[in-house]
Amino acid sequence: MKHNFNAGPSILPREVFEEASRAILDYNGTGLSILEIGHRTPLFEAVMFETVELLKDLMQLDSGKEVLFLHGGASTQFFQVPMNLLAETGTAAYLDCGVWGTKAIKEAKLFGNVEVVASSKDRNYMYIPKGFEIPSNATYFHYTTNNTIEGTQMHAIPDSKIPLVADMSSDILSRVMDFNRFSLIYAGAQKNIGAAGVNIVVVDKDILGGSNRKLPSMMDYRQHIENGSMLNTPPVFAIYVCLLTLRWLKRQGGVSAIEKMNREKSSLLYGTIDSLPLFKPTVDREDRSHMNVVFVMEDPEKEKLFLDLCKKEGMVGVKGHRNVGGFRISLYNALPLESVKAITDLMRHFAASHS
Amino acid sequence: MKHNFNAGPSILPREVFEEASRAILDYNGTGLSILEIGHRTPLFEAVMFETVELLKDLMQLDSGKEVLFLHGGASTQFFQVPMNLLAETGTAAYLDCGVWGTKAIKEAKLFGNVEVVASSKDRNYMYIPKGFEIPSNATYFHYTTNNTIEGTQMHAIPDSKIPLVADMSSDILSRVMDFNRFSLIYAGAQKNIGAAGVNIVVVDKDILGGSNRKLPSMMDYRQHIENGSMLNTPPVFAIYVCLLTLRWLKRQGGVSAIEKMNREKSSLLYGTIDSLPLFKPTVDREDRSHMNVVFVMEDPEKEKLFLDLCKKEGMVGVKGHRNVGGFRISLYNALPLESVKAITDLMRHFAASHS
Repeated sequence: MKHNFNAGPSILPREVFEEASRAILDYNGTGLSILEIGHRTPLFEAVMFETVELLKDLMQLDSGKEVLFLHGGASTQFFQVPMNLLAETGTAAYLDCGVWGTKAIKEAKLFGNVEVVASSKDRNYMYIPKGFEIPSNATYFHYTTNNTIEGTQMHAIPDSKIPLVADMSSDILSRVMDFNRFSLIYAGAQKNIGAAGVNIVVVDKDILGGSNRKLPSMMDYRQHIENGSMLNTPPVFAIYVCLLTLRWLKRQGGVSAIEKMNREKSSLLYGTIDSLPLFKPTVDREDRSHMNVVFVMEDPEKEKLFLDLCKKEGMVGVKGHRNVGGFRISLYNALPLESVKAITDLMRHFAASHS
Repeated sequence: MKHNFNAGPSILPREVFEEASRAILDYNGTGLSILEIGHRTPLFEAVMFETVELLKDLMQLDSGKEVLFLHGGASTQFFQVPMNLLAETGTAAYLDCGVWGTKAIKEAKLFGNVEVVASSKDRNYMYIPKGFEIPSNATYFHYTTNNTIEGTQMHAIPDSKIPLVADMSSDILSRVMDFNRFSLIYAGAQKNIGAAGVNIVVVDKDILGGSNRKLPSMMDYRQHIENGSMLNTPPVFAIYVCLLTLRWLKRQGGVSAIEKMNREKSSLLYGTIDSLPLFKPTVDREDRSHMNVVFVMEDPEKEKLFLDLCKKEGMVGVKGHRNVGGFRISLYNALPLESVKAITDLMRHFAASHS
């Protein structure tokens, strides 16, 4: 058995793999593969409807929120958001707290003015900036809720008088949040929602249309809303995998139940790191992510030995991102506690023989 | 057994469904699902490499051509093409020969001037305009090689002194063509290449950069080329299904072999339509598509009876597009001759009892 700590694309529930595998041979007894059904058929319309409704239910969204399943990944949202929301003469406020936020800032500058309200670049993004003020005259405030690469997470929603926009790619549905406080949320599916190839956008219709920009149809949220995420052929299978994953999450007891399980996993892992001097956490304690746990060793030789051991024991995705080095263990919703027990056992074993 | 005549997403080879289904449970004996492998791992890098090389081989592309696998479908290419190629003061020439071409024209107008060189709108796009001249001072000439909705196909590549750009979504890899005559080709995967959720772009690097426009990263072909279609997380599974489908096509003997099979299917179907006065082809004979065969009946009551009969006999996707009405039978690469025999038998049977 493999333990999959990949940062994304990442582990999904075993049941999801089994159901998806069956649907490729025969979708729901139709005699057709899920890969060959038309997107404008009742078969797929039912999939889209249930997926949207289930996401609204799990996120406890107000009736004013629209849920879209779009192409292009979160990286497309980096420019689609300002293209839709930011007038050429307007200003958007951004928090710079990691690689993804930095990319979002770069794209926004193509469409208007950007005010970076705070940055943690000075210490290689190993903390979340505090005490910053969000300008009340900006069009919106954008931040990344969880930094997949650096292993930090913003634990509270900042106070803001202006619309909040968040990239929640790597921690959406992992913890209870008041999602209704956001005017726009986006997230790539390939961590807690489903497989790679689709991203979700949750948007308050009222904030759209303010940029006065002529938008390409495929970039216009309003057109996607009007067409129920079927302005063109949607990524049918990727959306179906979202449906299976969301159904699984609902069966687990929803977001509050999964949050408890996620806390148990991150407590065990951070507790183990803190108890073993061989392993050094890289992130300020108060800003630690419950999804991506980043740590290093002082001796690169030993890092290599531990990575080799992980590989031998069937542990995948343990190596840290090239920007940070060391290790990164991702604890997404579908990762079982058993996998965290397995790697923490291995860490203790390794520390005992190499300290 | 079902016969799947869907216009897209559409039938894929049975072997592809079987291999894809297995890979979701265990990819190549790795103990991991294809849905949970990281895109920046040797496992997926090998998939991407083979898929690109296989497409270059099947299309017999010159070494100067770049092959990209992108998000967003052909509808995103409608604006991404002019965004990359057309300067604000420049002019692009377009052929208006169907719904998709019309949409491409609409998006191009956001980025520069558009000259429509010819249109078949006067007869509801039931033919391909002839004898038009492509202006030699335009930046590029864009056309749709096959009109999925209307059932027409351009059988020869037009003479052009300027770069040719083509939307080949619904007939790519179905017939031998000199693909090297095109500066840019795009196609949604969900007909002859694979499943919905990815599109391909074949581009001559030399034509890029001329628009002098600041491009969002995800819209910039050059950045996708530099990053080997992995500027962000690619649609991993959709690309894997392309690989399986292209391998299948190679096993069939490649494009020239599949063209013969496609001709056999379309001859049988058009021959049947022409022999039965009950069924009326809608398209000018010389412009008939070998991929999407469109026809009607004079009596809407009988159309409904025939559709009911098709449904009863397990024939899927026979109903025509709402713009045209009647019937549309799609004959993509993966559709077996047996399915065409089955529906032509049914047509003869129906005609005998309803004429």
